[in-house]
Amino acid sequence: MGKTIRKLEVASPVPADIDIANSVEPLHISQIADDLNLSSQHYDLYGKYKAKGPGSVLLSALDELQGTGDGYYVVVGGITPTPLGEGKSTTTVGLCQALGAFLDKKVVTCVRQPSQGPTFGIKGGAAGGGYSQVIPMDEFNLHLTGDIHAITAANNLLAAAIDTRIFHESTQSDKALLNRLCPPNKEGQRSFNAIMLRRLGKLGISKPKPEELTPEEVKKFARLDIDPDSITWRRVMDVNDRFLRKISIGHGPEEKGMVRETGFDISVASEIMAVLALTTSLSDMRDRLGKMVIGNSRAGDPVTADDLGVGGALTVLMKDAINPTLMQTLEGTPVLVHAGPFANIAHGNSSIVADKIALKLVGPGGFVATEAGFGADIGTEKFMNIKCRYSGLTPQCAVIVATIRALKMHGGGPAVVAGKPLDRAYVTENVSLVEAGCVNLARHISNTKAYGVNVVVAVNKFSTDSDAELNAVRSAALSAGAFDAVICSHHAHGGKGAVDLGVAVQKACENVTQPLKFLYPLDVSIKEKIEAIAKSYGASGVEYSEQAEKQIEMYSKQGFSGLPICMAKTQYSFSDNASQKGAPSGFVLPIRDVRASIGAGFIYPLVGTMSTMPGLPTRPCFYDIDIDTATGRVIGLS
Amino acid sequence: MGKTIRKLEVASPVPADIDIANSVEPLHISQIADDLNLSSQHYDLYGKYKAKGPGSVLLSALDELQGTGDGYYVVVGGITPTPLGEGKSTTTVGLCQALGAFLDKKVVTCVRQPSQGPTFGIKGGAAGGGYSQVIPMDEFNLHLTGDIHAITAANNLLAAAIDTRIFHESTQSDKALLNRLCPPNKEGQRSFNAIMLRRLGKLGISKPKPEELTPEEVKKFARLDIDPDSITWRRVMDVNDRFLRKISIGHGPEEKGMVRETGFDISVASEIMAVLALTTSLSDMRDRLGKMVIGNSRAGDPVTADDLGVGGALTVLMKDAINPTLMQTLEGTPVLVHAGPFANIAHGNSSIVADKIALKLVGPGGFVATEAGFGADIGTEKFMNIKCRYSGLTPQCAVIVATIRALKMHGGGPAVVAGKPLDRAYVTENVSLVEAGCVNLARHISNTKAYGVNVVVAVNKFSTDSDAELNAVRSAALSAGAFDAVICSHHAHGGKGAVDLGVAVQKACENVTQPLKFLYPLDVSIKEKIEAIAKSYGASGVEYSEQAEKQIEMYSKQGFSGLPICMAKTQYSFSDNASQKGAPSGFVLPIRDVRASIGAGFIYPLVGTMSTMPGLPTRPCFYDIDIDTATGRVIGLS
Repeated sequence: MGKTIRKLEVASPVPADIDIANSVEPLHISQIADDLNLSSQHYDLYGKYKAKGPGSVLLSALDELQGTGDGYYVVVGGITPTPLGEGKSTTTVGLCQALGAFLDKKVVTCVRQPSQGPTFGIKGGAAGGGYSQVIPMDEFNLHLTGDIHAITAANNLLAAAIDTRIFHESTQSDKALLNRLCPPNKEGQRSFNAIMLRRLGKLGISKPKPEELTPEEVKKFARLDIDPDSITWRRVMDVNDRFLRKISIGHGPEEKGMVRETGFDISVASEIMAVLALTTSLSDMRDRLGKMVIGNSRAGDPVTADDLGVGGALTVLMKDAINPTLMQTLEGTPVLVHAGPFANIAHGNSSIVADKIALKLVGPGGFVATEAGFGADIGTEKFMNIKCRYSGLTPQCAVIVATIRALKMHGGGPAVVAGKPLDRAYVTENVSLVEAGCVNLARHISNTKAYGVNVVVAVNKFSTDSDAELNAVRSAALSAGAFDAVICSHHAHGGKGAVDLGVAVQKACENVTQPLKFLYPLDVSIKEKIEAIAKSYGASGVEYSEQAEKQIEMYSKQGFSGLPICMAKTQYSFSDNASQKGAPSGFVLPIRDVRASIGAGFIYPLVGTMSTMPGLPTRPCFYDIDIDTATGRVIGLS
Repeated sequence: MGKTIRKLEVASPVPADIDIANSVEPLHISQIADDLNLSSQHYDLYGKYKAKGPGSVLLSALDELQGTGDGYYVVVGGITPTPLGEGKSTTTVGLCQALGAFLDKKVVTCVRQPSQGPTFGIKGGAAGGGYSQVIPMDEFNLHLTGDIHAITAANNLLAAAIDTRIFHESTQSDKALLNRLCPPNKEGQRSFNAIMLRRLGKLGISKPKPEELTPEEVKKFARLDIDPDSITWRRVMDVNDRFLRKISIGHGPEEKGMVRETGFDISVASEIMAVLALTTSLSDMRDRLGKMVIGNSRAGDPVTADDLGVGGALTVLMKDAINPTLMQTLEGTPVLVHAGPFANIAHGNSSIVADKIALKLVGPGGFVATEAGFGADIGTEKFMNIKCRYSGLTPQCAVIVATIRALKMHGGGPAVVAGKPLDRAYVTENVSLVEAGCVNLARHISNTKAYGVNVVVAVNKFSTDSDAELNAVRSAALSAGAFDAVICSHHAHGGKGAVDLGVAVQKACENVTQPLKFLYPLDVSIKEKIEAIAKSYGASGVEYSEQAEKQIEMYSKQGFSGLPICMAKTQYSFSDNASQKGAPSGFVLPIRDVRASIGAGFIYPLVGTMSTMPGLPTRPCFYDIDIDTATGRVIGLS
């Protein structure tokens, strides 16, 4: 791996992210691919610095590679963050730069594609930061290779299919519907096509020709009879557009008064993003997309994308998206970007496809670091209980990223608000505040250890942190059961600043003594699973709304109770209340509603009120973003 | 150009488009680029069969190429079509295959990127047909290189910025708005950034620091005071979603009752698509995007994207889209795909950037064929009066594509309906019906000749056409003043079937005797321009709704009356009434409303009721579209 390592010249104080990113000439991505022994038939170039693949092509060739063992599998989670973020992506990148550029290991970083909405809103980009970044950072943050656009297109095609189908069913007889669904060919013959045969199979009708159906069968086949009130499928957009959270559609005169209330989510919250993240092959993706449930018939039966005739078209829209995007870090180590963020309202992990390929590419003794969004209570929990369950992969080590800033907040420091200056407490030494905050870290450590992995705490060091504060975290982490706890300065120094972390992670991986243990078995009730997760948050119990009770009952009746659980919960507290910092306990966790992502394969309880569509502030990031028309360079991206 | 020509083996009867497209192994796109003498620095690969560029990079290098002359410039329009389309794209491709693969000319085909919405709806794809197609046709029809997705993202970011700004202005004082727009830096200093200085310049305020503004100036700067009823900017989606035509937004509790009625258009109807099509450089695009007017302040002043602070971010989202996509025809000749369709509700031409580059790449003696959407009344008219006006380019020849089918319809044949079998009249000989329909062709010929170009009629031959019918069209075309009229069979035979057309086009280009003449000068009133176009349709007059009168008055007052006109009119008749076939005259053209696309640079009258969002039928195309999961191939795309 050594040959394409790029030596970083670091400046102090650390310049702006975009300036660091622009100061480096990226390697042609074919060089990065060469280092991974990827032949050009396994990927397609997307410009000079991005390649798409190796996805379904290589996945289907994974059989050949089955002989090859996997590398070590490291998941990077965090403590409960402040709204500023604690540098989890930065640490994931820094760790890999250390392993690849300084410790001579084969390594692949697996990160999630950022949502474009927040890039123009409050948060800015998500390529890491300082001297630990994925580059080119503008390409990483914008469009990338179009996966999220494909998700948006597929999600909204399905949405259009739902409303249009209800509309056409409302104006046509069963017979007319059948005749329109199965039009005669040039010889006047009517027939079912492949996707119709799927539906007929599901209905237990095995007649090959439309004219052989009884009137009752015609009705069953041609009339989905969707209950508009049951529709859980919403439209999506990768823009922070708060005015679309709740809308009323169908006001045009041609829609004949069929007005319905619905709304838009941000695209990365689409079930199709979760399908992409959890799928394992093209044919698996086809099945999952077809199985997605959009609501129920009036008789209470789940209605799927395949029932609407659109599962194949959705797969066609997603066929390129199944391939991860190959990029590079500032130090020239390889990165696979795939699937999406938002571990609060989605499962928030990068894809199984990317991780699987990466583990084979690095092989035994190599390392794959994959990021799990937000705090370990949601990101790592979903990584273990959903993602590893579907992938069959076993992590050896979990990194928990902590900052002095966030620990002080958990210890009782004043509120940290994005866009507002930090309180003095956060930039001057206060060891006791840090020590008090370590309860949050300790609970994340013990929760994560329970999966059977070794836990390494990475303290992402800021220039204002004192040695006494840093040492306090180290000893708190070790007494809470961490395998090791390391101070890192990869933001300021790149991979060099995370060498100790790399060494600790290597030791942790080599010294696993336990098998992987899930937090709950699948074959218990939905409520038992929710309660197991709630207990890991510190809750003393769970309270279900009437709506939640109703949904749980329905999904259980429909046969979906064997799925894992994907909680939609605030990332800012173990509890449902974002202002409860530290390690709250004894609270009752409220479940407001329960949805199901049958295609992705999980039940999706909503803890309290979670927004699935961010907004824009008075002065969004976009005010600073422009193009230098002389050079074509992006400026002002943060 | 000869070396990469691919010899076609044609089958009879002509197989399905997707089967022909899949039967050919496309050349690696770098081979196509080599033939154009494009060095790899001028383009980026997007997979194996698409390259992006040469756009802004080569455009900026066009200065160097200024010495090189342009090739011949041929626009392909059509007669008034049936809903099935008369093969305009097919003829554009076939003509170029003839010129490049059989007549040994340098040639580039410039076509528009299809909208994905109709691909899954009724119409299917738009890559041409039979043995005259752009390949790979699935990549052409789906996503391509993401230009339309970028337009969707940019359009909707601007939409979100509008509603959010109104919301934030409603809850904050002038002073608070200013403070939020200009937050203090680490040293506590407030400042204006570049995009704010644009707005201050427009307002005539030249103070460098926020604290120096008077309260009156603070109000003028920080409060856009957008009149919600004046907003013409709508959201877009590249999906046929009729239920979004008219919607009501802002029903969420956080939006505090700020409900507003609006709607979605199909993405290709976005003003940003028109900007892309009409721009000439990156800096020109930056200016146009910033100048787009979204509505008015309550005082009646136009509010622009730059006033909202978002013009730079929109340009960043569009920076890759400015580069055309290089693809190939079935016979290996080069194709530039750029900008969008829908000449009825948009201007419907491919981009100036693509045409300019193509003309230099083929050089003197070479040929560029560019397609203008729908009938020549809208497509070619807009090509001449809008596109050529902005590009400064001069076409030598206009092709008008006609079919026996459409001419019979114009001669009084029964209605032609998509998805229904054709009436017998269309598949059996009926010379008098054809002759009667030639009034439509004749008017398109004389209208097009008036621009000073030579007109060549291309009769796109179907297997059911008789020689007598075809000859009738030839003689009608010649007596209407066509330079030549040629029978073509490129659908069945590829370029070989359009060799006569290629020869005729070459002669037409070499024998131009007149300069380019526009239909109207720019320096007359908006109404005079509308009336000049209406006259070309055969109208005896124009009737303006009250709303149209109001808008015309407002745009004139705002100083926009010098712009060209982009009519939104049905493609199915010269008149506003789709059922008036042939060459109607004496009707009064109703103008229902008038909008302005100030960034794109035209005034946009709506003739009658035009839908800007298509719908889905009971059995959309998506029913047949799926993926062969074993091979990864798309099936069922038409």
